Parts: sequence; structure tokens; C-alpha cells
Amino acid sequence: MRSTLLALAAALLVSAPLATSTLHAGETETYVPVEATDVVAGLRERALESDLGYRIVESLTTEVGPRLAGSEADARAVEWATAKFKELGYDKVWTEPVTFPKWVRRSESASVLGANAQPLTVTALGGSPAGTVEGEVIRFSDLDALEAAPAGSLAGKIAFIDYRMERSRDGSGYGPGSRVRSRGPSAAIRAGAIGYVMRSAGTDSHRNPHTGITRFDEGLVPVPAAALSVPDADQLARLLARGPARIRLALDCGWDGEYTSQNVIGQINGSERPDEVVLIGGHLDSWDLGTGAVDDGAGVGITMAAGALIGQMQVRPPRSIRVVAFANEEQGLYGGKAYAEAHLGEIRQHLIGAESDFGAGRIYGYSSSAPAYATPADTAIAEALAPLGIEHLPGQGGPGPDISPFAAKGLAWARLAQDGSDYFDLHHTPDDTFDKIDPAALAQNVAAYAVFAYLAASVESADDFGFGSAPTAEAGDGN
Amino acid sequence: MRSTLLALAAALLVSAPLATSTLHAGETETYVPVEATDVVAGLRERALESDLGYRIVESLTTEVGPRLAGSEADARAVEWATAKFKELGYDKVWTEPVTFPKWVRRSESASVLGANAQPLTVTALGGSPAGTVEGEVIRFSDLDALEAAPAGSLAGKIAFIDYRMERSRDGSGYGPGSRVRSRGPSAAIRAGAIGYVMRSAGTDSHRNPHTGITRFDEGLVPVPAAALSVPDADQLARLLARGPARIRLALDCGWDGEYTSQNVIGQINGSERPDEVVLIGGHLDSWDLGTGAVDDGAGVGITMAAGALIGQMQVRPPRSIRVVAFANEEQGLYGGKAYAEAHLGEIRQHLIGAESDFGAGRIYGYSSSAPAYATPADTAIAEALAPLGIEHLPGQGGPGPDISPFAAKGLAWARLAQDGSDYFDLHHTPDDTFDKIDPAALAQNVAAYAVFAYLAASVESADDFGFGSAPTAEAGDGN
Repeated sequence: MRSTLLALAAALLVSAPLATSTLHAGETETYVPVEATDVVAGLRERALESDLGYRIVESLTTEVGPRLAGSEADARAVEWATAKFKELGYDKVWTEPVTFPKWVRRSESASVLGANAQPLTVTALGGSPAGTVEGEVIRFSDLDALEAAPAGSLAGKIAFIDYRMERSRDGSGYGPGSRVRSRGPSAAIRAGAIGYVMRSAGTDSHRNPHTGITRFDEGLVPVPAAALSVPDADQLARLLARGPARIRLALDCGWDGEYTSQNVIGQINGSERPDEVVLIGGHLDSWDLGTGAVDDGAGVGITMAAGALIGQMQVRPPRSIRVVAFANEEQGLYGGKAYAEAHLGEIRQHLIGAESDFGAGRIYGYSSSAPAYATPADTAIAEALAPLGIEHLPGQGGPGPDISPFAAKGLAWARLAQDGSDYFDLHHTPDDTFDKIDPAALAQNVAAYAVFAYLAASVESADDFGFGSAPTAEAGDGN
Repeated sequence: MRSTLLALAAALLVSAPLATSTLHAGETETYVPVEATDVVAGLRERALESDLGYRIVESLTTEVGPRLAGSEADARAVEWATAKFKELGYDKVWTEPVTFPKWVRRSESASVLGANAQPLTVTALGGSPAGTVEGEVIRFSDLDALEAAPAGSLAGKIAFIDYRMERSRDGSGYGPGSRVRSRGPSAAIRAGAIGYVMRSAGTDSHRNPHTGITRFDEGLVPVPAAALSVPDADQLARLLARGPARIRLALDCGWDGEYTSQNVIGQINGSERPDEVVLIGGHLDSWDLGTGAVDDGAGVGITMAAGALIGQMQVRPPRSIRVVAFANEEQGLYGGKAYAEAHLGEIRQHLIGAESDFGAGRIYGYSSSAPAYATPADTAIAEALAPLGIEHLPGQGGPGPDISPFAAKGLAWARLAQDGSDYFDLHHTPDDTFDKIDPAALAQNVAAYAVFAYLAASVESADDFGFGSAPTAEAGDGN
């Protein structure tokens, strides 16, 4: 619905230095009607007082528990989400198929051999093959060091990257941390290693290793690849400081056919233009070690609750709120890719998308891909979020992982940036459990998503929805 | 060497309200010579600046790792301690046999069955038999509730005590917490249960269950008994709040013959009366889940370092410092009992005993069983500890676990009370690893033990050593 010329203008404008619009709301601008701004103040307060999001996360993590993509619990999670959307009064509830290769974890163990014999706590990286290997461990301080190892130099050896991921509010430490996971195994194989272990990409100090997907480059024969818990990486490093050390790594896991799960979708219909939607969501799958409370039960609970609270309002926004519980984000954004593919023809009916997939910490910042002509709407949203302690941070961030495939096709995105200082203490570990969630912080998230979604679904412009942006690069290893 | 009359007087005095001696040091009093007080100021500062204790714990936990009594690592720990005492320059190093039944852990798992199927993180309690049981879980809020269950009322069921242990500086929450572990399984059997699970006796919120010894009352047929991690106990309680739940508990573990380990003993000889000793120590064994850093690598490191630092002094105290690394404390104070038995004939040559077995937190209080006539010495020790932030707390506490069998025979004891606020976050879990130790807090402990041991080994009185006390009740489940 957005004209090509407007889209072109947007593409040019968004790449210019941050331009604060000095124009008043008018024919060529996208803005929020004052009635909507008035209404969301009450919605915001109601959401802050509601424990609905918290109860949704409790229900998912307790009743379904861990829900590895393709597992028996994946199907139960789909049933759960379908029933929950209905229970919450969503107007339309449906599923859309998502097919992916299935990876299974059966058992995993590691131990130091010889004079300092002792067990090590490990977990297989997602995508690792099965195998039992024994060999001398060669330590590398980071990925670059392993990638610089000459071919054949690790023949018969087990490579160990001992990179310590950094804690940060915005999660910027995870890029380098997750690259050790995604690229380390291939680097190890190129150098001739028979196995790969890494210090977990995490910021905690507990005996809970962090799993996560890895990939093997084309043409390489995969080797067993695992993450040590942080204390175990410390221990192995101390042993290696004393001299050579041999370990045994035994993984039983691997790819096992194909599975079809579902994106589960609930919609609160808009009062005037129900076919136009604001897209929010989280991902329904989790890793298997914990119960996926912060990753991403929280995102599911936050967005399901936000939609439900909007659905309960007397004055509905003109457009619809569509909440997606995405399938298999963890192993390659399969749910997000399937959604983008299935709905590419209706991309112009999607105003903007935002995914909650960064834990359960408070939201501290708002940004979006809004072009200059939509600055009035963007600013109105930011102003309505400000009472929640949320700062407007224009120009920062990018789309959430499951939104990114659609954003790469041109979907506008918003980012409600959560405080992730503690997120990587729990992320992908057995410790990602419901007790870690602060109900007040979760309610703040629900309030923010509700406010954002309501206002985004209420924008007006001369001819059609004005949020638009240049296509965004698709996220890589955001999962 | 203490006269019977004096001992009798002591027994009477110690039970009176705290009497602060108003007498000056004299013939019938035990006091610290001023020269010793002068010397310990330098010792205290040197110990605070030393990382010796920290390095000893690092060495034990890294090189030996977990050292379950009776395991292959038990023998390596004995070798390690013998070599370490010698390396530290102890004058005499020897071992004394300690025989006990051996318990082994092979595997353990649990899961919720049915519509909410999911794994539960458990660990077998020490002493549990092997077995796989499936049954409905019946929850009890505390031990009393289970003990009140009628005989037969739990036929075919699995009992679950969901008691939440309280955090406290002095560890007073552990009494009720550990009773759930030691007495719960027998109560479950009496009510007819086929298995037993408990919320871990711990104060953390991590996915690391707390093991520890349990016992089955005479005449009962033991059933599989395990501890759930705290988040798993929360999860099971949430499921039970929804309705009946069945679980499967599969333990492979049990008693397996007898083993003879060793108390490893190092002595720094006194300059005048080397056959008279101040006894300090920690226990060398650990549970198998962690590397036994705070329980009790810390105690071994603290007391070994304290003795070694005294050994390096130009002016030795007149009596000896004897440091014992006790065998198998965890499963029944076997090392402490063996020491008491082997040395009962020389109890009068033991001035006083103190064990460090409460983690690696700072010492905040000092107390002892000193009778009134030894108040001058007791006060001098307290004054020398005060610069370390240690308060004199006369009348509080009791002997450490491995000291208690000897204290029950009349040995005087001192207590250097550690801040245990965080101890039960780690105690008996996989998370009890070296990285949890604060080097500055450990050095404060070493300084306190060095000061205490030096002064206690320096006391003077008219005819002989004056510390003495009424026999103390032997500790029960202090381990």
C-alpha cells in the first residue's frame, strides 16, 4: 500500500543522519491520533498492574517444560499456544507449518584423563554429531587464534577455545561469544582436530553449560563439539597451565530426519482495517536443558499478554495486533523464515514488527526503522513509553531474530531493548527456569509492548501506513 | 596433665553465666605471655598479605578435583596432602588409617511422566540404595508433616518434602534443612513410600542439587532417596498445585564394601614442649559433584597455610601446631572419630582444637570452651583477632564436626565462626568449585587461624595447660 516513491524516499532518508522532523503532522507524515495517545495511558497502567504475562510464562514453562524443536514437547507446546490464545480471547487463532531438520541430544559427558582424572561438565552444541574422542587438549585464547592454526597442526588433538564472553546491558558481548560457538568447530576441523570444546558463551559462574546451535562449513567432516561450563573451562585452563592434559569427550546426539512444527498465531482484530497488522511475538521453542523461561517463554508471555490486554479494551485500534509464537528459532530462525515466506505477498499489510527475545529484564530503550516522514508517530510512541522508564534511542539496534527475515524484505521494525545484563547468565543453560523471572520487570515489558502495538496499529497518514524502511540485513546468529 | 580438681572446677564454671574474670593473670590462671602477643601482630599482617592458603586450595581442587571418600581420588588426595605438608616445611608428616564403608554413585535421573513430561534434575543422597521407582508424588511441606503420615498411607507413592531452608550468617538454617535429608527417607518408608525426593537443603536458585549423607533407621528396607535442585522442587510443586503428578526416579548407587583412607597429619614442632599440641584442620574428602572448594578445600588450605606460616617464624611457640586433613567427614565424621580413638590416651597433651569446615567466608566471631580460669588467655586471643574484624562471642557455638568426637571426650575447642550466608548456595553441589573463593576472605581466615594457633600454643599457667572444658555433646549431622 505504500507507494514506491514514498518507499524510495524513506530508503534515502533513513540512511541520512538522524533527521528530527520539524514538520507538523500533515498529509505526507505518519502520526498517532491524539485519541489513541489518550487511550494508551490507561492501557499502560492496567498492564503494569496485571500479572497476565507472568502467568502465561508460568503456564508454558511448567506444563510444557523444555521444548526442543522437533521433540515430543514441541508438539505439546504448539497445542499449549493454540489453547492459550483461545483462552485469552484472541479473535483468530491458527497455525502455519514450519519444517526443519531435527536434532536430538541423548547423552553427553567429558572427563580429564590421567593423574588429574575428574569429570568435566559439558553439553553438546546443537548440530554436533555423536562421537567419543580422546586426545590432548590444545587451548586457544579466542577464535582468531584457532583460525590461525595451520592445517594439520591439531591432528589427533582436541581444540579448546577459552574465550570469556563479556557482560553488557545491550548484549553486545554475545556477538563475539556466539561466533566461538558457530565458527569454532569448523576452524578446529580445518586444523585437523578430532574434537572441539569451548568455554560457554555465558557470563555466569555456575556449573551449567550453555548450549546453542553450531554449524559446520561445507565440505568438512563434523567432529563432536561441546561447551564446558564456565567453572569447568576455568578448571581445564588451570590444568593446562600445569602441563599437557588429555580429555575424553563422549557425545551421543545428532541429526535425525525432518520435523514439521507450527508457528502459532493469534490475532486481535482491528476495528477498521483488520487486514493490516502490527506483528509482535516471541519464539515458542527452547533449548532442552532448561525450561526456556527467559529464552523465550518470556517473549511469548509478554507479547501474548500485550495482545490480550489490547483485546480487552473498549476502544480497539483500527488495525489488528498479530502475535506469533515462532517455531524453532534456536536452530536457525526457521519460524521467522517460514512466516516471511508465507506472508511475503502481504508484506505491505504488515505495518511494523517487533520480537521479544532477549530475556525478561526491563526495557530501557525504544528505537525503530521509522523513516523521517514517520517521525511524528515514532516520537509519539517513544513519549508514551517514557513513563515506563524507556528512553528513545533512535538509530540504534535492529529487528529481533524472527522478524529479521521479513525485515530483510522490507518490513519496518521496532526494538524494545531489554536490559540483558543478566541474560547470558541463564541463556541456553539448565538454569533458564521460571524462578529467574521478576514479575514486575515482566509486567513493564507487557506494558511497553501493549503501548507500542496499540499506537503502531493506530497511526494515520495521507494515504496509507507510513512506517517503512530500507530492507534490513537478515540477522545471522542471533539465536 | 590438667588436674582432676581443675577440670571439675572448669566443668562447674563453664555452665555458669558468662563470667568475665576480674582476676589478673596469676598462678591459677591461664594466660598468654606478652611476648607472644607482640609476635602475632607481625604474623597476622604477614598472613593477610599471603596467598598461600588460596594457592593450597587451588592445588587441591585442581589437581585432585572431586574426592569422594573411598574413590580413586581419595587415595590421590592423601598423596597430595602428604606431599603438600612436606613441601610446606612441616616438621613431621604422617598418616593414620581411617576405615569406613564405601558408597558409590554411578548414575541418577528423574522425570515427570504423562502430559507434563519433562526431566527433573536430581542427585542421589549419600547412602541411598540403587533402584528405579515410578509413582505418584505426595508433597509434604516439612519433615514433621511426613513423620505424621500414617503407616501405609504412602503405599506405592513417592514422598516429597518441599521444605525451604533458610539463609543465615551462622548456618542455623542447616539444622532443619539437613534433618529433612537425614530423617526424611526413614519417615517415607514408615509411611509405605517406594521412593523419596526432597527440595535440596540449600539456599541457592540454581540447577545444581545438593547431595549429602542420609541414614536409614534400623529395621527399615531402604528406598531410593534423592534431592531435587531448588528450581526443580519449585517446578514439581507448581505441577502438584495443578493436580496429581507421577515421576520416575532412577538411581544407580549404593554401598560397596569397605575402604581404608588416611587422616593426613602435619606438625610444626613447638620450641619447648613439642609433645603438647594445638589441633587445627579441615577435612580432605569432598562430595563428588563439585571439586570441594568451599567444603572443605578451604578448611584444608586455611589450616595448612596457618601452620606453615607459623613454621616460618623465627620465634616458634613453645607447643606444637598439629594440622589434620581428616578423612571422610562427609559420610559420618570417620576421620574425626578415628583421630579421637587413636589419640584418646594423649588427650591431655591436646590443648585445644578448632576445625575450619564452614566454607571460605570471612570469620566474624571467636568463641571457645575456655573455662573461667582461662579467661585471660581467651581474652588475649580475642583481642589479637579483633583487628581482623572478629568479634568475641563467648558462650556461642561449638566444636567443628571432626573435632566433636574428641571434644566429647573432653578436648577444649575454639570456634572461628565464618560468615556462612552464601555457604549453602554451594554446599554439596556441583557448583562448589574454586572460582567461588574470595582470596582476601581466605587470607583473613588464614590470619585468624595462625593468630589463634600461635597464641593457644603459647599459653602459660602455674602447672600445666589451662584450657579445659566439660565434655561436649558429639555433633550429629554436622556434615
